[in-house]
Amino acid sequence: MHILTVNLGDRSYPIYLGEGLLSRTGELLKKAGSGKKVGIVSNQTVADLYLDPVQESLTRSGFRVIPIFVPEGEEHKNLKSLSDIFDRLIGERFDRSSSLIALGGGVIGDLAGFAAATFLRGIPYIQIPTTLLAQVDASVGGKTGVNHQEGKNLIGAFYQPRLVLIDLEVLRTLPRTEFVAGLAEVIKYGIIEDPQLFALLEANLEDLLSLNRGLLEKAVAASCTIKARVVEKDEHEEDYRSVLNFGHTIGHALESLTGYDQFLHGEAVAIGMAQAATISRREGLCDDKSLERILHLIKGAGLPTDLPSGIRLEELANKMEVDKKSVGGKIKFVLCAGIGKTRFHWLSAEDIIARLASIQKKVESENR
Amino acid sequence: MHILTVNLGDRSYPIYLGEGLLSRTGELLKKAGSGKKVGIVSNQTVADLYLDPVQESLTRSGFRVIPIFVPEGEEHKNLKSLSDIFDRLIGERFDRSSSLIALGGGVIGDLAGFAAATFLRGIPYIQIPTTLLAQVDASVGGKTGVNHQEGKNLIGAFYQPRLVLIDLEVLRTLPRTEFVAGLAEVIKYGIIEDPQLFALLEANLEDLLSLNRGLLEKAVAASCTIKARVVEKDEHEEDYRSVLNFGHTIGHALESLTGYDQFLHGEAVAIGMAQAATISRREGLCDDKSLERILHLIKGAGLPTDLPSGIRLEELANKMEVDKKSVGGKIKFVLCAGIGKTRFHWLSAEDIIARLASIQKKVESENR
Repeated sequence: MHILTVNLGDRSYPIYLGEGLLSRTGELLKKAGSGKKVGIVSNQTVADLYLDPVQESLTRSGFRVIPIFVPEGEEHKNLKSLSDIFDRLIGERFDRSSSLIALGGGVIGDLAGFAAATFLRGIPYIQIPTTLLAQVDASVGGKTGVNHQEGKNLIGAFYQPRLVLIDLEVLRTLPRTEFVAGLAEVIKYGIIEDPQLFALLEANLEDLLSLNRGLLEKAVAASCTIKARVVEKDEHEEDYRSVLNFGHTIGHALESLTGYDQFLHGEAVAIGMAQAATISRREGLCDDKSLERILHLIKGAGLPTDLPSGIRLEELANKMEVDKKSVGGKIKFVLCAGIGKTRFHWLSAEDIIARLASIQKKVESENR
Repeated sequence: MHILTVNLGDRSYPIYLGEGLLSRTGELLKKAGSGKKVGIVSNQTVADLYLDPVQESLTRSGFRVIPIFVPEGEEHKNLKSLSDIFDRLIGERFDRSSSLIALGGGVIGDLAGFAAATFLRGIPYIQIPTTLLAQVDASVGGKTGVNHQEGKNLIGAFYQPRLVLIDLEVLRTLPRTEFVAGLAEVIKYGIIEDPQLFALLEANLEDLLSLNRGLLEKAVAASCTIKARVVEKDEHEEDYRSVLNFGHTIGHALESLTGYDQFLHGEAVAIGMAQAATISRREGLCDDKSLERILHLIKGAGLPTDLPSGIRLEELANKMEVDKKSVGGKIKFVLCAGIGKTRFHWLSAEDIIARLASIQKKVESENR
């Protein structure tokens, strides 16, 4: 078992990473300290696969476990589901010493984390991410929240978990498309911070896609380490944390515009990264070779790189403007300066769209 | 103009206190730093009285002002109103540099503060309390939140404002019952921390009730100073901040049980304080003389001290158990040890009810 630490003073916490950790939940939660009452927020699909070992382990350690199911899907990450969770917590007489466990992907993690952040003005919570995407991204760093019909995560809080428990075994039951989508975020860490991780992915993509145990552990641990270091530098995203947004300005807007049902988050981010890297090349920040490697790795993983042909760029721009990262009409757009380095440019949605339009024109003329 | 400071490291902020400050809002907000867009959360009654000077001042200082009205009353301090505020903020394209102003009493302050805490994971906000109660209590200390049908403030966050602007002139248009209810919290500060403030209130109650300018300023400044010092010691109510809860365990339960329409918050707290002081006397913590002074001051202010005769104590107990301060079934009950000193006792709701029942029996036998 790996133990990484997110160092945030009195809000520091461990990330446990290894195989078969679900059945050690009780022991690890006991170590972190919690009252006897523990709610497990999950959905039916995830619960069918992973609830039993978690619940048994907690019961064995003397906890009283209350499973709390929420409906599946990004469209239920909203104030309604949050309100339903509150009803349950109040019905079960949760107090400030009670804990919540988020058992699931990013939707569950964000929702349960926000419920923990705001119930009684904050109770402890634990992240047990069951998708690759949640393991390398949402579960670490304390971003919690729900969606508004106008955009993702517009309502939320920064609120750190007491511990993160990453069981790599769960990836063996994860649908392949979901695994691949998660790889997009792993690739992102390589692009923004870690040429070595990027090279590791390039050299071992096939083995990684076949869930090679050692490689998985390396890739996830490297990703979580980068995420932890970035969060330590800038917990509340006042400055540097925005680097994690590479590929997300376009990715989020695309997800929002397509109603969250055409692309998995990782797929939209893959397109966003490919477009951002291409823009970076055109701005003279990124060399040809790096751009080629980035596009090659994304495609090699089975991820998309092009905006869908039907997309209307002005509508995409509208979605960018309600993104919570925009300030005074400008968006802090993350560009890459080769592999492992980034640069922030403040651009309006129109600036970004003009660049995307020019890329699309080039693609179209090449395809003719 | 008085300037008090709440010292909380990088979340420190000033409390400006004086007469005619509403028309200096723009200048003071500029000093605190904010983007151009400012939402003023208020209700119709408050807005009719005070919106104009605030809005004019902000406009003069170059801000773009967006008034956001919410319906009046504690029953609208809920997730629905919160969601309505989010809709407006998104419609008006608020970003992370935009600010919210809470212009109103405690309901507006808690609701607008919680909206600011959770919109885009946190934007700046300013408290402009327009009731005595909000000036001496809710506006200082960063407690924000909304109610759940099962209890008050069960959903919320600790989130500090950028500044608090207390204009004493607004008290001249405040209904007398509201002013008197606010005095309950001022009396509380005397009981829990400040024998001098308590003596000042005793000696000058009539003048204070006639809104004597110098006395008002002294009483409000002393109250805010105590609140600030307590919050500095224990921002997240892990320990000492609970002292502010004196009279509130019973008060909150009473409000909840009577559907928030029979008592103003301050009135319920007045009853809670009188009962808690009487319990303190019976536990041998508070001497006869202090108890007498406490009851005399509360009554002298025109506030109630007795539980309404129809109340069912078991139902009151149920309401206490869902209070967010209960841990493992026990409630951290604040007792007074004379005037200016407190003691915490961990009691079950049943313990508290048994003591109340015995007090009621004594009152009844005396009335016979």
